[in-house]
Amino acid sequence: MLFERIESQGLAHYSYIIGDMGQAVVIDPRRDCDIYLELARRAGCRITHILETHRNEDYVVGSVELASRTEAAIWHADGQLDYHYGQPVEDGQTWDIGSYRLRALATPGHTPGSMSYVLHAPNGEPWLVFTGDTLFAGDVGRVDLAGLDLMPELASALYTSLFEKLLPLGDGVIVCPGHGAGSVCGTAIADRPWTTIGWERVHNPKLQYRDRATFEEHVAQVHPRPPYFRRMERYNLEGAPLLGTLPVPPALPAAAFAREAEAGRVLDTREVVAFGAAHIPTALFIAEAALPHYLGWFMPYDVPLFLVTATGDPTPVTRYSIRLGYDDLAGVLAGGMTAWHMTQRDSAAIEILPVPAFRRRMATGERAWVLDVRSPAERAAQPGFPDARGIYLPELPDRLDDIPTDAPIIVYCNSGARAMLGASLLARAGFAPLAVVLGTLGA
Amino acid sequence: MLFERIESQGLAHYSYIIGDMGQAVVIDPRRDCDIYLELARRAGCRITHILETHRNEDYVVGSVELASRTEAAIWHADGQLDYHYGQPVEDGQTWDIGSYRLRALATPGHTPGSMSYVLHAPNGEPWLVFTGDTLFAGDVGRVDLAGLDLMPELASALYTSLFEKLLPLGDGVIVCPGHGAGSVCGTAIADRPWTTIGWERVHNPKLQYRDRATFEEHVAQVHPRPPYFRRMERYNLEGAPLLGTLPVPPALPAAAFAREAEAGRVLDTREVVAFGAAHIPTALFIAEAALPHYLGWFMPYDVPLFLVTATGDPTPVTRYSIRLGYDDLAGVLAGGMTAWHMTQRDSAAIEILPVPAFRRRMATGERAWVLDVRSPAERAAQPGFPDARGIYLPELPDRLDDIPTDAPIIVYCNSGARAMLGASLLARAGFAPLAVVLGTLGA
Amino acid sequence: MLFERIESQGLAHYSYIIGDMGQAVVIDPRRDCDIYLELARRAGCRITHILETHRNEDYVVGSVELASRTEAAIWHADGQLDYHYGQPVEDGQTWDIGSYRLRALATPGHTPGSMSYVLHAPNGEPWLVFTGDTLFAGDVGRVDLAGLDLMPELASALYTSLFEKLLPLGDGVIVCPGHGAGSVCGTAIADRPWTTIGWERVHNPKLQYRDRATFEEHVAQVHPRPPYFRRMERYNLEGAPLLGTLPVPPALPAAAFAREAEAGRVLDTREVVAFGAAHIPTALFIAEAALPHYLGWFMPYDVPLFLVTATGDPTPVTRYSIRLGYDDLAGVLAGGMTAWHMTQRDSAAIEILPVPAFRRRMATGERAWVLDVRSPAERAAQPGFPDARGIYLPELPDRLDDIPTDAPIIVYCNSGARAMLGASLLARAGFAPLAVVLGTLGA
Amino acid sequence: MLFERIESQGLAHYSYIIGDMGQAVVIDPRRDCDIYLELARRAGCRITHILETHRNEDYVVGSVELASRTEAAIWHADGQLDYHYGQPVEDGQTWDIGSYRLRALATPGHTPGSMSYVLHAPNGEPWLVFTGDTLFAGDVGRVDLAGLDLMPELASALYTSLFEKLLPLGDGVIVCPGHGAGSVCGTAIADRPWTTIGWERVHNPKLQYRDRATFEEHVAQVHPRPPYFRRMERYNLEGAPLLGTLPVPPALPAAAFAREAEAGRVLDTREVVAFGAAHIPTALFIAEAALPHYLGWFMPYDVPLFLVTATGDPTPVTRYSIRLGYDDLAGVLAGGMTAWHMTQRDSAAIEILPVPAFRRRMATGERAWVLDVRSPAERAAQPGFPDARGIYLPELPDRLDDIPTDAPIIVYCNSGARAMLGASLLARAGFAPLAVVLGTLGA
Repeated sequence: MLFERIESQGLAHYSYIIGDMGQAVVIDPRRDCDIYLELARRAGCRITHILETHRNEDYVVGSVELASRTEAAIWHADGQLDYHYGQPVEDGQTWDIGSYRLRALATPGHTPGSMSYVLHAPNGEPWLVFTGDTLFAGDVGRVDLAGLDLMPELASALYTSLFEKLLPLGDGVIVCPGHGAGSVCGTAIADRPWTTIGWERVHNPKLQYRDRATFEEHVAQVHPRPPYFRRMERYNLEGAPLLGTLPVPPALPAAAFAREAEAGRVLDTREVVAFGAAHIPTALFIAEAALPHYLGWFMPYDVPLFLVTATGDPTPVTRYSIRLGYDDLAGVLAGGMTAWHMTQRDSAAIEILPVPAFRRRMATGERAWVLDVRSPAERAAQPGFPDARGIYLPELPDRLDDIPTDAPIIVYCNSGARAMLGASLLARAGFAPLAVVLGTLGA
Repeated sequence: MLFERIESQGLAHYSYIIGDMGQAVVIDPRRDCDIYLELARRAGCRITHILETHRNEDYVVGSVELASRTEAAIWHADGQLDYHYGQPVEDGQTWDIGSYRLRALATPGHTPGSMSYVLHAPNGEPWLVFTGDTLFAGDVGRVDLAGLDLMPELASALYTSLFEKLLPLGDGVIVCPGHGAGSVCGTAIADRPWTTIGWERVHNPKLQYRDRATFEEHVAQVHPRPPYFRRMERYNLEGAPLLGTLPVPPALPAAAFAREAEAGRVLDTREVVAFGAAHIPTALFIAEAALPHYLGWFMPYDVPLFLVTATGDPTPVTRYSIRLGYDDLAGVLAGGMTAWHMTQRDSAAIEILPVPAFRRRMATGERAWVLDVRSPAERAAQPGFPDARGIYLPELPDRLDDIPTDAPIIVYCNSGARAMLGASLLARAGFAPLAVVLGTLGA
Repeated sequence: MLFERIESQGLAHYSYIIGDMGQAVVIDPRRDCDIYLELARRAGCRITHILETHRNEDYVVGSVELASRTEAAIWHADGQLDYHYGQPVEDGQTWDIGSYRLRALATPGHTPGSMSYVLHAPNGEPWLVFTGDTLFAGDVGRVDLAGLDLMPELASALYTSLFEKLLPLGDGVIVCPGHGAGSVCGTAIADRPWTTIGWERVHNPKLQYRDRATFEEHVAQVHPRPPYFRRMERYNLEGAPLLGTLPVPPALPAAAFAREAEAGRVLDTREVVAFGAAHIPTALFIAEAALPHYLGWFMPYDVPLFLVTATGDPTPVTRYSIRLGYDDLAGVLAGGMTAWHMTQRDSAAIEILPVPAFRRRMATGERAWVLDVRSPAERAAQPGFPDARGIYLPELPDRLDDIPTDAPIIVYCNSGARAMLGASLLARAGFAPLAVVLGTLGA
Repeated sequence: MLFERIESQGLAHYSYIIGDMGQAVVIDPRRDCDIYLELARRAGCRITHILETHRNEDYVVGSVELASRTEAAIWHADGQLDYHYGQPVEDGQTWDIGSYRLRALATPGHTPGSMSYVLHAPNGEPWLVFTGDTLFAGDVGRVDLAGLDLMPELASALYTSLFEKLLPLGDGVIVCPGHGAGSVCGTAIADRPWTTIGWERVHNPKLQYRDRATFEEHVAQVHPRPPYFRRMERYNLEGAPLLGTLPVPPALPAAAFAREAEAGRVLDTREVVAFGAAHIPTALFIAEAALPHYLGWFMPYDVPLFLVTATGDPTPVTRYSIRLGYDDLAGVLAGGMTAWHMTQRDSAAIEILPVPAFRRRMATGERAWVLDVRSPAERAAQPGFPDARGIYLPELPDRLDDIPTDAPIIVYCNSGARAMLGASLLARAGFAPLAVVLGTLGA
């Protein structure tokens, strides 16, 4: 049989393809969908169905794109929504895939109409369960994304889904969630790539709240919600534009890049120290691996993006971007910053401070304003610099008034990546001088 | 600088990309055009121009496809035609590519408006010349494709183009033609991947006819013209449909393949002996490597194609097909003939005869009807079996009445590939028993 | 963390790499070991330990090869043996890998000193267990390979290992066995790529024999033992010769191939029908995918192998061969059988019969001798042709006297692959005429 | 036929493979020689001969490595030397490769026994000539490497070789040299990837000195000679150690890297700005693309190298290193400088100055000591900063006494790469503060 998990890094998005006897099903496909076609072809299967576990909000689901290249039928969870394509799944609905059977199991909670899909082995027994954003390794789905008014109701529904529907499948059933560690769809997903009902039943912290009220209290929490979710929700309802193939932004020599980027935004995804040393003054910094998390927080749609990348190969950046609906990739700086400087152009810098250097500097008694852009939870869990002010990175654009203009600003997070992102935002807003701490101040 | 020749096998089509200082030009691109984007990106160049040497007739030129993924301008030779896209080139027109300069040089002959493009090095001297289908290694372009009435005039124009325009560029100039050995656009292109004006001046057989009249007499010859050229000419005038990405025909299990293929045509591209041993009775055989030559002779457009391939990977077949405008690839047999037989389906066979076996059989005095499907020129150059009848493969469909129905038929060519193609045509027409000679009867 | 399963197809061998915080461990590596280096490098880990679950008998373990390219320590199970390298593991021994801990768990049965390795998550709980050939999806390890005298004792030890050591780990623990479906190390391994203690406890047929005596009775069975196991056992004790890199057998033109192959053996791995249609008369046929199963049954060591492959790319054949210790790959036929025939060489054929053709022929009352090369178990499970004689394929070389020389021989299995292998053995022994049934005679 | 040029970037080394009718020859192979095996296999050829154009001095020739994986015979030019392997070529010696013929043509000059190899087409005419380091596009070979005493004699021999042996081959013959633009084996090799005798005869600056005395005067020049040439000469005489496969340096976490690197040398190959921003204090900087030029100047043999690379993939660095005989690659920093800083380690910085920033700083009248590390020829051709001192980069280690310790030092070249290399040397020697200009000060 064919069973593969396809991980889209950064988003920590897991999609799945299952096939047997010439037929295959894809669950929650991503938008750059060639990989499913290739896996199906190699296994001698034809993709006949695309199943969604819920109306995804953190990425563009690839159902429409994949369906345009196959004849597969699209099946929606959250059937209460007014989709422009596909058909709604009903609880208990089944699909036979060769000698295996998939069965829809309504597991509302993360969204009002979330579905899990149980894969029954040829002997009829449940073997795997695709839980979407309902149950993760070490975590359960957020219930705050559908609106605060719905939160209590969804928390209760989630309790039922977990304790009365998923756990009863049996300890030996393998759990195939929609996300792995690092996704914003959970708050504490574990870095444990495979898990089981049995493990989660005993060790998942949220599932230890076995009393409904306690459970609801603990999961009904509001977490940050990136602004791009709105567009994802619309795309996943209406169908995103068809790509056909991954866009290849043209390599632009420095002069053309400088000229054309004036009509768009410069996005620099190199390593933190390289950005700190020299960058195009208007650039926003987001480390390549962090694009899935922060592009949608800080980059507007509807402006062309101009890329400065580490290797000149923008393919990873391209993939990350189109998965979030940023399709207008207008160019990549040919030759990188070396080529930029070769044309005698100026660049800006943000000082970087290894931890020992930061400590030496603080020991001098300098009157710097130290900014901690970690989340409140992180700050609570691991204290940073005693005199630092905390502004969570996503809130920074709205909190500029709180930042002094008469002192050096030193930003830190727990590695330097988010701090540099924040510093690049501050630099664009005119703050100076800026420095970023590399590494973590924690023990 | 960037200079790459991209060879599309089978068609023996050569396209070129030249780049310098951030700018690149593509000459006669193919339809599956990702490779130009990738080469340009790696070299830090943006494709700004697409140049055609003539209105190509043997493949779908990729100009429109490539332009749809870049902002490149398309420049046409044969500007007398009524193109639906792009702009006409004028003789002497130049394009600066960094420190290099391309210059259009009108070289009519193969077509009324064929253009060559001379690449001048930074010192201003001609270094390379892109000759399209005007001059090849060891051959010159055909002059019979634009119609018999134009042939004398084109032969004369070709003489002028070769002797008065190309040869004067100088012996040391490197010749970059539009095709290599094996193309139907020449009749005797040499297997010499790089050549020069000097070599061709001295050794090209056609250029030894230095007297105009003798030259015209020798080149004004009519050669076979595959029927698909009509569609290529129309596509290259109007612009072929945009592909976006290479189609991926779905893998179909045997039962689905059998059922669905009834509405289309089965194309089997495995090795000759495998086809001979067992094939789907309705299949047309064309060896994978021979698709560029014969698909357009024997396969109609506007029916879906169902593929039986050697490895299950239809990508090479897909590339070959779309380059000739066969875009409707509806499926590939999952698991190949093994899977077909596993479902207890029947298959047909065509006997194969190694040369010794053929000779043994002929020595028995058997009354078989032996068919030589090689071209008249090949038959003249190398005698085959004395009692064989010659019917050139492309003429076979129209010559079925000449073939007896009351004797075994044994087909040969010079390897077995064309003979098996011919035998598969005969089998579809009801002739039997059939055998194919493997290898060549020549010395 | 890093956790990957590496599947070696055909052998259905599973090896594993686990890494965390810069350190990685490989369990039961294969001989072509680049993949572990590459996975470790990408994850930023250094391979520090190589663990073997038992002295493997069905393939060359890659411990020595991998250790030669790293500084990893090799740890042996079956520590009672006199290894020429590495150190013995003790029951309960632990290795810390970042925040994870591996723990050796003695699980004798398949071999006297088999070890499982339990992976404990950072919370200390068992998460995965690497069971080697002790427990598979749907099956348990064979106990007949260490000798018939040891079999009862090992069967009893296996009961203890399974019921008293592995099952108590808990239903939610994921089972990572040493083989998947298709391995000869089990007799009925299920095609279920991931499984758990819980699933196996309830659904594994062998684990339903909960009474010790009944269990022992059912697992103490003798199964075929390929002769190459002896060499594997020696190699895995003494260390196989170092390869350095995968050998690349030279492409040999037909004449050189014919000449040089006289000093070795010709191995043809093309598809069944292609071999049937035309093959080098001395060739042994083993379908590429079946090499891991049959090369060690039918090919002697210490003669150079000359390959006829489907595509000209011998890499898959090369991998399969060196995994079984066949390192002397002296050449591959350049251009395949087409090139062979182009030199006017003769080839041999074995008739192929799709099932309908076989049935038509049998209906004529022809006096053919029909041979079923399936195993006794297969014959018992699914009847074949009523008048067929059964000789299990591995026994065929010793049973030639039972085969008539005065009648056509028709061979079948359940697809044609083993039947053609058998037919190629018979052809080499002089039997004729031969035919092979394609597909299965079963319902 | 098979004809491919294999370019090894950085060294700008060109090797070639030629094949026909099942047989192939490689000219001047590189040490990482898999590519020849793969090209030969795909073309259905067996490598039977390895030809060297001279005893190479700038890289480890791969003859012994390639011969160890084939049965090819090695043929040496410079047969006067006492090789430990292979056989000497004689002037006029020929090798038939299918229907082509290679002919040795003694062309001394670059070395006393340099050979060119003329490839004759099937019609017997010279088509290509492999000129080794005798004739390049736009340049001729150096004559100073065999010792100053031999220089006049070699210059004269070179004149004869060029004007009396190579040019007479005819203008239309294609020239296949041993190096392209960027090699240290010429001084002004043009960036013209394909050239001809005719082009070089007319446009090669050195070939315009048609008078023997004038020619000798212009070519008998002494150029820098990297110290590693000695080892290359020895390796290419005695045979370098066999690699088997490309080494894969283990990924080392920061702590292990820091600890183990104390016994070796740290080599940082990231982009200039990243190194400037933060590097391990003991690191030597050489930009990845510059390794072939500078590794052999500045890195001792016989110490293990510890790598800091841009992407974590050390493969390009590995290839560059082993081609120069640096085989002991003991580790690569896992996770790069980010991981280094995460462990709260300190790093050093070297200030970087875009050209405008440099100009602003100079305009302040600051008393910095400005160092130009370009070659004398470059400085003559393009003036830099008026008050700069010139010390050519390779001479820097011996000129430290000339550098002040009481002023800021600002280093420039024409891009920043060599300047940063020089600055990293100065930093290791204790000079501070240091800054590097990014880009060129030229117009």
